[in-house]
Amino acid sequence: MEHGVRPGWPGILEVYRSFLPITEGTPRLTLHEGNTPLVYADKLSERLECHVYLKFEGANPTGSFKDRGMVVAVAKAKEAGKRVVICASTGNTSASAAAYAARAGLEAVILIPHGYVALGKLAQAVQYGARIVAIRGNFDQALAIVREVADPLGMEVVNSINPYRLMGQQTAAFEICDALGRAPDALYIPVGNAGNISAYWMGFTRYYEEKRIDARPKMFGFEAEGAAAIVRGEPIAHPETFATAIRIGNPASWDKAVRAAQESGGAIDCVTDEAIAEAYRLIAQEGVFAEPASAASVAGLLKRHREGGVTRGETVVCVLTGNGLKDPDSAMRLASQEALVVDGDPDAVRRALGGLS
Amino acid sequence: MEHGVRPGWPGILEVYRSFLPITEGTPRLTLHEGNTPLVYADKLSERLECHVYLKFEGANPTGSFKDRGMVVAVAKAKEAGKRVVICASTGNTSASAAAYAARAGLEAVILIPHGYVALGKLAQAVQYGARIVAIRGNFDQALAIVREVADPLGMEVVNSINPYRLMGQQTAAFEICDALGRAPDALYIPVGNAGNISAYWMGFTRYYEEKRIDARPKMFGFEAEGAAAIVRGEPIAHPETFATAIRIGNPASWDKAVRAAQESGGAIDCVTDEAIAEAYRLIAQEGVFAEPASAASVAGLLKRHREGGVTRGETVVCVLTGNGLKDPDSAMRLASQEALVVDGDPDAVRRALGGLS
Repeated sequence: MEHGVRPGWPGILEVYRSFLPITEGTPRLTLHEGNTPLVYADKLSERLECHVYLKFEGANPTGSFKDRGMVVAVAKAKEAGKRVVICASTGNTSASAAAYAARAGLEAVILIPHGYVALGKLAQAVQYGARIVAIRGNFDQALAIVREVADPLGMEVVNSINPYRLMGQQTAAFEICDALGRAPDALYIPVGNAGNISAYWMGFTRYYEEKRIDARPKMFGFEAEGAAAIVRGEPIAHPETFATAIRIGNPASWDKAVRAAQESGGAIDCVTDEAIAEAYRLIAQEGVFAEPASAASVAGLLKRHREGGVTRGETVVCVLTGNGLKDPDSAMRLASQEALVVDGDPDAVRRALGGLS
Repeated sequence: MEHGVRPGWPGILEVYRSFLPITEGTPRLTLHEGNTPLVYADKLSERLECHVYLKFEGANPTGSFKDRGMVVAVAKAKEAGKRVVICASTGNTSASAAAYAARAGLEAVILIPHGYVALGKLAQAVQYGARIVAIRGNFDQALAIVREVADPLGMEVVNSINPYRLMGQQTAAFEICDALGRAPDALYIPVGNAGNISAYWMGFTRYYEEKRIDARPKMFGFEAEGAAAIVRGEPIAHPETFATAIRIGNPASWDKAVRAAQESGGAIDCVTDEAIAEAYRLIAQEGVFAEPASAASVAGLLKRHREGGVTRGETVVCVLTGNGLKDPDSAMRLASQEALVVDGDPDAVRRALGGLS
């Protein structure tokens, strides 16, 4: 083995212990989250004449960046003596909460709006053994109920109001700096609930204060056009985008996200579903299969490049928040290709493929 | 950052360069495959009174162990001047081939039997831009055609007959030893095409010869009962198991697998679909969502434990070959749970959950 790199990444609580609210009493919880690939995007870099890296958070244990915050939230819940964690979620949060609860020996309760969510979207949470409760009401009501019943029942809320979530999510910024040996010039990131851009900014700022980096990146966050509450300056009652993970009309961390963009000299902007779909395809050409919402970061980079906002030779990181395997249907729906059907003999196949090699 | 572990794992070609057929001319191809979690299974360890680790290969870039071999095979194909790679596959191999071909700037052609495979199973390959060719015939015919047309068309075959595949797959054994600081006492692994058990044995043997480990593990491979060609001693015309990734009736690496088991003092055995389903659930209780075929390793460990074949206090590693997100339908089908449906008010939810905390 070369390069001083050894297998056996022990997870973020261990590696970034001094940056996290870890005490003697905090359980050493891990599914070996973090240390996700920072993939150099050859084709995008050449096309945009700068250095583009993709931070592939889909490689986390449950397939999304949520694991970084959840491992901290669940460890602290266990430290506090809680036996049950609860959240309202129809996607990545539920999977992550259920996995870390199982790992920690706690119960997980997931509230969903009845009839709104195909149960298949919850396959992970179900497999990890979470208790699913469907309420007759919408998502906002589910979240309100979570907040109301958790305390009386002695359960810990692990929705984004849990402050440990953002603390854990900072570690992705640390990893980027550690891997590059510096901060990037700019960070591009999808904006849904707006927590993640806030967490990255906290992380870069922390490393800057500790003098581990000399400068902080400009932060560029991108909402989907049909769910662009921050860009429009008002909540959106019925957000619409095929990038479901950022289909959010009233972001919980709105103010923090705006502050991150402003303080860093960046911006919050939005991209169309068409631009997201195109970026989703370009990311796959680099060899990475991310979920559609992830592609908002790359769509944003392309938009800023067209507007002259990208400096030749600069180093940028685009955050890809989730694994494409979470949403194979989008891949199939957007594929332009039909399978070629030919007879089962070598000559037919040879003729069909003749033009390729 | 503590522990001398730094983010930025550069992939297996770089880390295990001296163990692989890498030359000056080999492209430095990577999607940062390898360095997958070795998860300590608390609950299984306690129950079986030994130390059980899960090597979660589903954390690889395309979600399966295939990436380790494919990165080597595609890099060598590019080094040899090939512009197209080709394989017959309906699953993990096609995803991996397509991803690394895209990464390397090569074309990928995937042959599948027409009508046999839901196109959705190919979502990854399609998204990575592979050309899918459906032939009127079965899988064996597809593979035969691949072997016949590849040379005349100047394409590289990346099915398991490609010798670089097993070389790359050895690296998982290296990682286990590097992470534990020794070899485990026993390795448990699913057996389908039988290549992976052979590759692990090559890897352990290589490390043993290089004196990086003092002893090699016993190798225990497990076929699904309905596809147990090696155990029965004859090919199976119509293999049946819900663990699709090991539904193989005539393993390509049959002899090598038998030799690995014999030389190591282990065995090839089989487990029922019921035992696989039970193990699949137990793995999720440790916080890991693997595809059903992966669970054959843990089912095998449980079987041997019942038979008295596991020594108290020994260290065993169970290989989990793929990500559960590849097959969410199995999770939903096997779930015993129905979602609880209640009215959208706090009291109703509190009543429903009262017993939990």
